[in-house]
Amino acid sequence: MTLKIYGIGASRAARPLWAALELGVPFEHIATPYQGGATRTLEFLAINPNGHIPAVVDERPEGAVTVWESMACALYIARVHGKADGQTITPATPREEAEALRWSFWAVSELESDALTVLMHRMAMPADQRKPELADRAESRLKVPLTVLEKHLQAQNAKGEAFLAANRFTVADLCVASVASWVRPAGDLLAQYPAVSAWLHACVERPAHKQARALK
Amino acid sequence: MTLKIYGIGASRAARPLWAALELGVPFEHIATPYQGGATRTLEFLAINPNGHIPAVVDERPEGAVTVWESMACALYIARVHGKADGQTITPATPREEAEALRWSFWAVSELESDALTVLMHRMAMPADQRKPELADRAESRLKVPLTVLEKHLQAQNAKGEAFLAANRFTVADLCVASVASWVRPAGDLLAQYPAVSAWLHACVERPAHKQARALK
Repeated sequence: MTLKIYGIGASRAARPLWAALELGVPFEHIATPYQGGATRTLEFLAINPNGHIPAVVDERPEGAVTVWESMACALYIARVHGKADGQTITPATPREEAEALRWSFWAVSELESDALTVLMHRMAMPADQRKPELADRAESRLKVPLTVLEKHLQAQNAKGEAFLAANRFTVADLCVASVASWVRPAGDLLAQYPAVSAWLHACVERPAHKQARALK
Repeated sequence: MTLKIYGIGASRAARPLWAALELGVPFEHIATPYQGGATRTLEFLAINPNGHIPAVVDERPEGAVTVWESMACALYIARVHGKADGQTITPATPREEAEALRWSFWAVSELESDALTVLMHRMAMPADQRKPELADRAESRLKVPLTVLEKHLQAQNAKGEAFLAANRFTVADLCVASVASWVRPAGDLLAQYPAVSAWLHACVERPAHKQARALK
């Protein structure tokens, strides 16, 4: 198998796993949880010296290519292992390229930190350790990027395109939905953004997403 | 002119400006400072609803393509306006693609916040408003990513490659150097990383970088 993906589905590693599954690219999943020390072994640090999952190793004729940073991993798999024919998640035009790049960086810089706070303090942490006031403040700040996303999706819908970059699901949607899905525990907040809610539902219900998330 | 770049050189807009200048791509520079309200006009918000510089508008035969997020803008210009012939800043192989993607996201997630604190509290802010203790803590944390960068550059040098992705300056270097340059006010810290220091010097001394930074 030329493509190895390190991580687990219940982490940012869902992003490259989801990308590979959307494309139907064969890969070897190397189960690597972020807890318990697996990302701090000498063997793993030789792959990603930052000590984070995911990491992707692509064994190619010209040598192994190593990728880390989850968004970079997803974009790399789309670009290098997908066909840019306008049928796959791979950006196929300069405009689709622009959408994939701008929305994946946007998700990291405008959405991810507060979305993670909502996930942790509304759902993921044990109830007695949650701090609802942190989630409240994060939800309040999230109205700014969610409004930007809502307006973009409404404009897309108005011109007959159901997704961020085109009238098909692309890696731009994958990158943003993988972060936006963390906001789902804040149902009242999401309900204020109907285009975001419908789009997010369409993304996370895709079979490849469910398969990726289920990988232990 | 098909390519418009909104921003000023003394900001994150240096990234797309630098990329265009490296490639020798003609562009129109629309001076847009981040202070004083220019990013909050209705006209600018129609280009970037997030209200940040830089923004890039690429007028193409098939329609205008709008990019924002500084790293996305630089990567877009490299990919769409550069020749992938192994002579330019444009990634020309899967490995160079991986380096450009992973290092640009890494710079945002592992380097940028602390590097900005160093820049602000060691140099950019008026002396009486600086908080040296914030810069001290940021410098302490920066040892982790700077060690990762140092080891990568040492390994690159050992195989005869002077830059992050190849034996030539590419958009990977541009993205990381544009952030790492903010650490320069912490001279004692940088001196502990000789490969980083030499590489950073080589990057920022490039004529295209100086031209980009000088654009008002």
